[in-house]
Amino acid sequence: MGDFKHLVIVKFKEDVVVDEIIKGMANLVSEIDSVKSFEWGHDMESQEMLRQGFTHAFFMTFNKKEDFTAFTSHPKHLEFSATFSAAIEKIVLLDFPSLLVKAPA
Amino acid sequence: MGDFKHLVIVKFKEDVVVDEIIKGMANLVSEIDSVKSFEWGHDMESQEMLRQGFTHAFFMTFNKKEDFTAFTSHPKHLEFSATFSAAIEKIVLLDFPSLLVKAPA
Repeated sequence: MGDFKHLVIVKFKEDVVVDEIIKGMANLVSEIDSVKSFEWGHDMESQEMLRQGFTHAFFMTFNKKEDFTAFTSHPKHLEFSATFSAAIEKIVLLDFPSLLVKAPA
Repeated sequence: MGDFKHLVIVKFKEDVVVDEIIKGMANLVSEIDSVKSFEWGHDMESQEMLRQGFTHAFFMTFNKKEDFTAFTSHPKHLEFSATFSAAIEKIVLLDFPSLLVKAPA
C-alpha cells in the first residue's frame, strides 16, 4: 500500500485574497509533522468546460491513513478549516490510499 | 518551476467495469514516455457531501508542460479518451504547474 492522499479542489469566492489562504495552508502543513508533503497548483490551462469553474488543486500526502486522521483532528487544522470554508464558493474533496502505477524513472 | 500535473476526478457510470478502464489507463501511460509518473485512488473515506459523488482521482505527472501536450495529442491517448469519456457520468479536470510547498523528508 502506498501513501494516503488528501485532495481538495476548489473555486474561491471572488473577493478572496487567494495568496493569503495559500500562505495559511503552507504554515499549517509546516507546523503539523504528520503531513509528509504538500503541493498545489492553479489551473490556467485546461478547457473551461472540463474545469467546471474549479481553479485550484491542493494535495497532501501522508505515510498512512492514521497520519491523515491526526492531521484532520489537529486544533490548528480545525482553526484553518473555518477560514478556508469561508473563502470557497465550491469544493470537492477526496481522501484515498494512492496506488502508484508508473513511478518516476 | 516544478512538475506539470494532470488531475482528473470522475464518477463512473453504474454499469462500467472500472478495473478495465484503469487497466487501459495503466497501459496507456506505460506506452507513452512523456508521462513521468501516474497514480490513482478510489475514495471510500471522505464525507459524501464533500465528495459530491466523485469516486476516483487520477494524477499524471510530467517534467514539463510540453510533455503533457505531447501526451494529450498522442494517438493512443486520443483513442483511450473516447473509451474513457463514454464511461464517465461526471468529470473535473485540472492541468497546472505544481508547486511543492512541503517536500517529503
